Amino acid sequence: MNLDFTYHNPTRIHFGRNALEKLPEELAAHGKNILLVYGRNSIKRSGLYDKMLDILKASGKNVTELSGVKSNPTHSQMMEGVRLVRENAVDLILAVGGGSCIDCAKAISVSAWCEGDAWERYWINYEPVSNDVVPVASVLTMAGTGSEMNGGSVITHEEKMLKQGRVFPSFVNPRFSILDPELTFSVPRLQMASGVFDTFSHLMEQYFSGDDDNTTDYVIEGVMSSLIKSARAALRDPEDYEARSNIMWCATLGLNTITGLSKTQDWEVHMIEHQVGAYTDCPHGAGLAVVSLPYYRYVCRFGLDKFARFARTVWGVDISGMGLEDAALAGIAKLEGFIRELGLPTTLRELNATEEMLPLIAHSTVLLPAGYHTMTAEEVLAVLKACW
Amino acid sequence: MNLDFTYHNPTRIHFGRNALEKLPEELAAHGKNILLVYGRNSIKRSGLYDKMLDILKASGKNVTELSGVKSNPTHSQMMEGVRLVRENAVDLILAVGGGSCIDCAKAISVSAWCEGDAWERYWINYEPVSNDVVPVASVLTMAGTGSEMNGGSVITHEEKMLKQGRVFPSFVNPRFSILDPELTFSVPRLQMASGVFDTFSHLMEQYFSGDDDNTTDYVIEGVMSSLIKSARAALRDPEDYEARSNIMWCATLGLNTITGLSKTQDWEVHMIEHQVGAYTDCPHGAGLAVVSLPYYRYVCRFGLDKFARFARTVWGVDISGMGLEDAALAGIAKLEGFIRELGLPTTLRELNATEEMLPLIAHSTVLLPAGYHTMTAEEVLAVLKACW
Repeated sequence: MNLDFTYHNPTRIHFGRNALEKLPEELAAHGKNILLVYGRNSIKRSGLYDKMLDILKASGKNVTELSGVKSNPTHSQMMEGVRLVRENAVDLILAVGGGSCIDCAKAISVSAWCEGDAWERYWINYEPVSNDVVPVASVLTMAGTGSEMNGGSVITHEEKMLKQGRVFPSFVNPRFSILDPELTFSVPRLQMASGVFDTFSHLMEQYFSGDDDNTTDYVIEGVMSSLIKSARAALRDPEDYEARSNIMWCATLGLNTITGLSKTQDWEVHMIEHQVGAYTDCPHGAGLAVVSLPYYRYVCRFGLDKFARFARTVWGVDISGMGLEDAALAGIAKLEGFIRELGLPTTLRELNATEEMLPLIAHSTVLLPAGYHTMTAEEVLAVLKACW
Repeated sequence: MNLDFTYHNPTRIHFGRNALEKLPEELAAHGKNILLVYGRNSIKRSGLYDKMLDILKASGKNVTELSGVKSNPTHSQMMEGVRLVRENAVDLILAVGGGSCIDCAKAISVSAWCEGDAWERYWINYEPVSNDVVPVASVLTMAGTGSEMNGGSVITHEEKMLKQGRVFPSFVNPRFSILDPELTFSVPRLQMASGVFDTFSHLMEQYFSGDDDNTTDYVIEGVMSSLIKSARAALRDPEDYEARSNIMWCATLGLNTITGLSKTQDWEVHMIEHQVGAYTDCPHGAGLAVVSLPYYRYVCRFGLDKFARFARTVWGVDISGMGLEDAALAGIAKLEGFIRELGLPTTLRELNATEEMLPLIAHSTVLLPAGYHTMTAEEVLAVLKACW
């Protein structure tokens, strides 16, 4: 059934080889005090850091830095950012990096002028945001999360062992995002593959729900098909501009909500991965790859038609003459082949999870009702054991 | 080759059965003086007009009306709207109807406070808009043009026999658009079919250009596939909500620029149809249907690979063993079948064009360079003769 929706996405995207040239005119619309949020050394090695500082300086900005943002950005980093925003009256938080940096920037944005405990209010109790937010923008260097064009922010509370996501209203979206595919050329192969699978997972989680025949399902199939083809090309040649630019745009489309409109969705794989991540600090895409195969092999029995369609339209499996269950499993076998092509892990042991962690992960996983089947903690545990 | 682009689309879409309930909170963000722009009697017959006036009254608005907007909105109607905006200090132009009304509303918006001749400045000389614009919004009752989520405005200058389109920057986009698929149930069958083909044409014009393998091509194929399936369902049952809602959303996706990003495009069919429309005042979708078949049969020789792909992915033609040209023509044969299913015309005579008009249409058609082949006026004339 096609659900009612409201869609509003005001992020301005500058995409392409010369996208960074748009930065000065975007900066001109904001105040002088910039908080630059970035990760470890990669943007210094690539020369992007120096280039950014040159542009910011030429634009007359005062720059404060929050560096070292982890691949799973933490509550303590967010609170450090809050302190910096308050002390420096920051006008714009500019994330330079992948989704981790952008998620962290949004978390700082909504928390900086929040009264009380922002983590409790926004990530635990899902309160609406009524305080002022600091504008966020991004220069993207890694494709995958889609954070560059949405209001999502996933934060890990290290002390509480919780990795929690929240989608904020569109006024928290980046005001602008600069997407230059060439900036992703230097991303290591495994991180690129992890990003590709993060995107593919977003698409599957929006696709595998509902028995409907929604326009959005067809759009998702198109984006999946393009992503598979371009990922293979990029594995052969990481500097294939067409492939890397398609991957980058697939990632944005994969979570700018266009590919979820009007549909029920099933985000249980992300929920399980969040807790795998909270316990192992694994790369997000790698955790998703591990969890996806046993999860979909288990739940496909509750939505065979859609899984058979996935085999046919996305993977080109000739399902004529097959039973529905065989067709569904043939599609998941293709998915497994793709995960292996990407060089991603398929067991929790490869993520350094210990056997003792499994029940802890299962019992801290959020259980969502919207998919073909609502999981119990015991079923999550069985899925985890199946990929142990 | 994937082209650089900037994407910014701030229109807020309220979609679904209860979308009209969002109107009061949207109205609250605008001033008291509303210009209501609508067509002939259909919104009065359906009861929507009374409902709109009730909501506007309850919201404390003063309403001025511009009614009788034609399916090809005219320069004189636009100038009448300009007069009404100036005399009543209008704060918001609210279009209620199909793309014609929304296009007219945008034309009034950019022209109301323009110094000099707005038609000459904006539709002929393509000057940038620096004057104030009046905010536009829409309540959509007919799916097809995509005007509800873009900055496009096509106006016919009756005296000059010119139908000219212009895409304005995103600040001219509707601030919000209300899309309730049930409001399209009462659209007559031929108008529905015309809208479906208008959307399909937008998708083809973005698709049939470039030898690239862009993510956007895959998205277009998905939207085309959904549109074909839903159009067939809606022809069987015009009150099939899922089908009508898919058609409505396909129309928006078909021209909110998402389905054109990063691609070269070929809008020559629309250019030819614009002049067919200027001479015959035919319904837009019907004109497109007539022109498309001879046009694509002619230009496919310059882009056989893409036309063969169209046959395979969109129409499910088994092209293995076929030559490329046969494959391409097989896809266009499927397109012709679809046009006949829709009950649309395939000859200019059915649009009341006279033979004397053909050279006038050909020689007033804008010739665009971006497709597989740049047409000459003589080639346009040959296309027109082929569908005479």
